[in-house]
Amino acid sequence: MNISSPRKVPEKLLLGPGPTPVEQRVLQALAQPTLGHLDKNFVAIMDETRELLRYVFQTKNELTIAMPGTGSAGMETACVNMIERGDKVIICEHGVFGTRMHDVAERCGAEVVSVTAPMGKPIDPEDVRRAIKANPDAVLVGIVHAETSTGVLQPLDEIASYAHDAGMYMLVDAVTSLGGMEVPVDRLGLDMVYSGSQKCLACPPGLAPVTVSPRATERIKNRKTKVQSWYLDLTMIMRYWGQERFYHHTAPVNMIYALNEALRIIAEEGLENRFARHRRNAEALWAGLEAMGLKLLVDYEYRLPSLTSIVVPEGVDEAMVRRQLMEEYNIEIGAGLGELKGKIIRVGLMGSGSNKKNIELFLVALGNVLRKQGFKSDISSALEAVEEVLA
Amino acid sequence: MNISSPRKVPEKLLLGPGPTPVEQRVLQALAQPTLGHLDKNFVAIMDETRELLRYVFQTKNELTIAMPGTGSAGMETACVNMIERGDKVIICEHGVFGTRMHDVAERCGAEVVSVTAPMGKPIDPEDVRRAIKANPDAVLVGIVHAETSTGVLQPLDEIASYAHDAGMYMLVDAVTSLGGMEVPVDRLGLDMVYSGSQKCLACPPGLAPVTVSPRATERIKNRKTKVQSWYLDLTMIMRYWGQERFYHHTAPVNMIYALNEALRIIAEEGLENRFARHRRNAEALWAGLEAMGLKLLVDYEYRLPSLTSIVVPEGVDEAMVRRQLMEEYNIEIGAGLGELKGKIIRVGLMGSGSNKKNIELFLVALGNVLRKQGFKSDISSALEAVEEVLA
Repeated sequence: MNISSPRKVPEKLLLGPGPTPVEQRVLQALAQPTLGHLDKNFVAIMDETRELLRYVFQTKNELTIAMPGTGSAGMETACVNMIERGDKVIICEHGVFGTRMHDVAERCGAEVVSVTAPMGKPIDPEDVRRAIKANPDAVLVGIVHAETSTGVLQPLDEIASYAHDAGMYMLVDAVTSLGGMEVPVDRLGLDMVYSGSQKCLACPPGLAPVTVSPRATERIKNRKTKVQSWYLDLTMIMRYWGQERFYHHTAPVNMIYALNEALRIIAEEGLENRFARHRRNAEALWAGLEAMGLKLLVDYEYRLPSLTSIVVPEGVDEAMVRRQLMEEYNIEIGAGLGELKGKIIRVGLMGSGSNKKNIELFLVALGNVLRKQGFKSDISSALEAVEEVLA
Repeated sequence: MNISSPRKVPEKLLLGPGPTPVEQRVLQALAQPTLGHLDKNFVAIMDETRELLRYVFQTKNELTIAMPGTGSAGMETACVNMIERGDKVIICEHGVFGTRMHDVAERCGAEVVSVTAPMGKPIDPEDVRRAIKANPDAVLVGIVHAETSTGVLQPLDEIASYAHDAGMYMLVDAVTSLGGMEVPVDRLGLDMVYSGSQKCLACPPGLAPVTVSPRATERIKNRKTKVQSWYLDLTMIMRYWGQERFYHHTAPVNMIYALNEALRIIAEEGLENRFARHRRNAEALWAGLEAMGLKLLVDYEYRLPSLTSIVVPEGVDEAMVRRQLMEEYNIEIGAGLGELKGKIIRVGLMGSGSNKKNIELFLVALGNVLRKQGFKSDISSALEAVEEVLA
């Protein structure tokens, strides 16, 4: 090996599905001196982080913490703690992450009843109602609030009320929504909600915020069997984040500093302002893309403000589009996943990345790159449309 | 909440069982701009990190990676991938982490045969030989190389040869040994070895290096059932760290930068130099403590160079010792765990923390704090003894 330290990492404009741009303040927090995981100064940071997480989750849930893993560890935390072997669960699948939840639940020994919708569409609440009626013995309904593979925003109100009326728990993936739009934890009484640090929270990847309703906490405390994952066992981890400070694992100390700082930035902006900014910039992006002559995958009313899926025009090689955006403009966007591979590209406007300058940069870059492949991008109209929305 | 950013974290001297002191170079690496988890610049850092991990693990194992979680996630990775429900396994328990391994293996559905030794003693290879003979259908032998709860260094040569002669796999916890002393992965053909980033590797907590022998990799590829943890499923993760770059989870990008830099520091020093330094400084600490009039928990030949357990003298309140070390000297050390709680204190000399100045600082501080409780610490003799070893 030819080691030449220290390494300099190049800066890129992260406009993909995550990780998203991380502010200098958060990177500086990450580089603060490492403390012991039981140190009183660190414990104070954990406590403040819990308070701030409750703020972004819009909840009073006592059990609100950051799990020591990436977003998928949040999904696994939700499933391993809520499911005991042999339980029946209803899982909604309208994208890669719903399908992943099905897989994770099965690995927990669950019997899974699937409710599906095509990729790019939301789940029909009526389908969930029918599944609940046909399976009154199911324990929970699992669903993805913000499907990162498609950009679909899933309405939860009706589904949550059907589930709760039947005595079931609501398990919700909020990986790409938390911090960028309302995640109605207390308003809808969602029971187990998880997210990732690297999306709208605008922190580096590595932590999975989780919040658990009092009712779900009781269920977990009263399990008949041990949680199959020792590492993600909330019955122990709640004792570490709680007053007891019971040693479980060595917390990822510096990552918690970073999350703490990222959450402080959100608190300073205020949730309502932040949601409105994400929404307004998304509207501008959508208007610009459509004015350029492009089609969006998702119908207007179900679009996520944080993530937009653009249909790749006929005859355009999307891998070349992404490569040229990176090589010529230093911009990262995301490819399609699963059956949408090659058919869509995904653009994220999250955290500080959701701003007018990035929208304009991206539209110009995309327009130029598409022109090289014969697509007649109308860049001027795109920029005018943006201006109009943000005026 | 009263938010006043940016937060400054105080610096403390970390002489506990981990986390250990993190060099400024590593903290600076942590604060480099976040890249996408599939970005070619990041992929290059992953590739170099794998090479460097092979160097510290002293192995040629293809499957050598950093798992996205803390040391306990390494233990869980080892168990969930190697064990299928109903498998019989032999687990050696001579401390809290061996007992934890028993728990984790049972949660994977294993039938566990225990081989035990008292805390502070190593496992007797003869006991393992007998357990293997009595349970020829067992799949693996799990054992802790460096028991962080006691400071015992477990000799592995005989046990590995018994296990391999019987066709079993060797699963080894090297959390507190990797980077501070030999972990004989290839020399003994250890099959599944894991560690943590925050011990002798001197990186912040949050990653679990893992290496897997070709034979164990084959076993994992040919499992009859899915790995019960999706998040830690090596059959998928090996495709992300391998040439294919198959998307699994969003890697903890900045933590990988930090691990990469910490490993570069190790490569610059050279493993042999680093092991010798850890050993020499440990000898100096032991000599100093004994000259001061203190007893060590572990017999000389089984002592870890990275972690030393000191028996709390009769009549001394160890919680007060630790509190005063922190409040008056800014030094963190560790308490006893499990049945050794209140009976020992644990002192780590790992990574850059293993140096003469820290030994002297610690001995003076400990001597003074013990004197307040009536213990007649001979500080001068302690310092002379250190000088003699390091002369």
